[in-house]
Amino acid sequence: MLYGAGDVRCEEVPEPKILHPTDAIIRLSATCICGYDFWPYRGLNDVMAPMAMGHEYCGIVEAVGSAVTTVRPGQFVVGSFCISDNTYPHCRFGFQSSCVQREFMTGAQAPFARVPLADGTLVATPELPPDDLTLGLLAVSDVLGTGWYAADAARVQEGSTVVVVGDGAVGLMGVLAAKQMGASRIIVMSRHQTRQDLALEFGATDIVADRGEKGVAAVKTLTNNIGGDSVLECVGTQESMTQALQCARPGAIIGFVGVPHGVEFDGKSLLFAQVGLMGGPAPVRRFPPHLIDLVLARKINPGKVFDLTLPLADAAEGYRAMDERRAIKTLPRV
Amino acid sequence: MLYGAGDVRCEEVPEPKILHPTDAIIRLSATCICGYDFWPYRGLNDVMAPMAMGHEYCGIVEAVGSAVTTVRPGQFVVGSFCISDNTYPHCRFGFQSSCVQREFMTGAQAPFARVPLADGTLVATPELPPDDLTLGLLAVSDVLGTGWYAADAARVQEGSTVVVVGDGAVGLMGVLAAKQMGASRIIVMSRHQTRQDLALEFGATDIVADRGEKGVAAVKTLTNNIGGDSVLECVGTQESMTQALQCARPGAIIGFVGVPHGVEFDGKSLLFAQVGLMGGPAPVRRFPPHLIDLVLARKINPGKVFDLTLPLADAAEGYRAMDERRAIKTLPRV
Repeated sequence: MLYGAGDVRCEEVPEPKILHPTDAIIRLSATCICGYDFWPYRGLNDVMAPMAMGHEYCGIVEAVGSAVTTVRPGQFVVGSFCISDNTYPHCRFGFQSSCVQREFMTGAQAPFARVPLADGTLVATPELPPDDLTLGLLAVSDVLGTGWYAADAARVQEGSTVVVVGDGAVGLMGVLAAKQMGASRIIVMSRHQTRQDLALEFGATDIVADRGEKGVAAVKTLTNNIGGDSVLECVGTQESMTQALQCARPGAIIGFVGVPHGVEFDGKSLLFAQVGLMGGPAPVRRFPPHLIDLVLARKINPGKVFDLTLPLADAAEGYRAMDERRAIKTLPRV
Repeated sequence: MLYGAGDVRCEEVPEPKILHPTDAIIRLSATCICGYDFWPYRGLNDVMAPMAMGHEYCGIVEAVGSAVTTVRPGQFVVGSFCISDNTYPHCRFGFQSSCVQREFMTGAQAPFARVPLADGTLVATPELPPDDLTLGLLAVSDVLGTGWYAADAARVQEGSTVVVVGDGAVGLMGVLAAKQMGASRIIVMSRHQTRQDLALEFGATDIVADRGEKGVAAVKTLTNNIGGDSVLECVGTQESMTQALQCARPGAIIGFVGVPHGVEFDGKSLLFAQVGLMGGPAPVRRFPPHLIDLVLARKINPGKVFDLTLPLADAAEGYRAMDERRAIKTLPRV
């Protein structure tokens, strides 16, 4: 539970119950702390405290409401941080995160959680997955799905030159996604050795440690003064967005998934830069069949992005470690 | 020549000469006044007066510089309002309007004009076209190319629902382009009978006469509360852009070609709207082979957008007529 800026507490709450016939209750196999959680944690979002944290999740179905037809108790399911019906036009177009019935998942940093609109939101694996793939499947529910969407929105293609701004967990997943989509050059802007190492492991070809003008100049030098075909903006500040705009060639698209805080665009500059923008809360629900297959076939290993495991009771320390950048992504053990 | 806000004069100027080996001199077969000309004409752009107006043009090559190899005297050529070398990466990617050697054409509202980088900028027709197709070919050099780019940037596809904001000449060309690209629904926001009629002739399926919230509500009603798959923003004001954003479904792209004046985007709103943006001064040079073919084969008739012809000496009246919306697009006879 988040009580206010910097104040996360692990406490007993009532067990979640089926509230609507479309709900499911799941027993979490794994959950984690998201970069997004740090907007309220750092006091940069308004918080209706106390707030039940956690929106990345996978686990075993415990119970389903009477209207649920696509998942059943005992199945292993992967969720999405956006709750969606996956039925009406916005969902059918692949933008489930703008579902007319959209809710944002909460309360998944816990042993059990209630998932509304279970039919639209949960995807079951064909059989119970081996334990060592749990973290990869957990990643599908947000961090991988979001990095994947950034690359998809930025239209990464076979042979693309991709620039990734941000070396947080989402940026690193963006690297993995760009690699899977066939990018031939993946330049990551990162100042942290452990993140650089992981970026290289996920498929980055170049690391730029500088930021701002120097960083942009380095990207330009690496790209023969052209810039990237696709830019993944995975931070959400004016500084990072400016960097993304300046690293993009004319005609490039910036896929932006870092939730903008204080970011503004001037229309005229954007027109003359001739750079496209496509952002959004990621429609994670669009990608699971494919991403789950990649994880189960061991073709990708997104679970490597989790580098700190702690008992759920120590969640506060898990938040602190990420906040201080001692950890890329924390797993509270449930 | 534009001397200041509202002050256009037809006057004798020295005949243009080859200044660089890459130049060509053309004798204008037709030229016209552009909506863009009204930003300086209305005092909304800074002007280094006197300013030689005119950047839409087609005509006969009179002379070429020593380095010009792709066009020769006597050929009929279609230009672009952006001068480009059509050689280096930005051009090869199809974004000639961001060419590293980009210049903006000037001085084409005249009997003769100098075209820099002739090899990269001019496209010759296979033979001299019949006179009645001159205006269609003129349109290719900017107004049609720009409307076409708006539809291309907004990724209009077979079966798309398209919303066009702006019933100026570019908006009307956007309608024609969307129709050619296979859109099944083309909704035009227009309050002027003559423009509505032309929009319907070019392929519009629905007209919305309201603006602002009422206009958006009408578009929503027409689209079953979904919004457009592609939105063409052909004005450039905050009001028109807001309308465009609100008419777009999640996942839609707004192709924006109205040069933004005072338009700003809030990053967070843009992310949560999940609407893409792709704008730019149109890379008109990308489309000529195809568009010239369509005109020569009489499959499209973009020349219909010109509804006022005047002697060049009366250019001032031509500007006034467009400024007061008495004309959609004026042809000064050269």
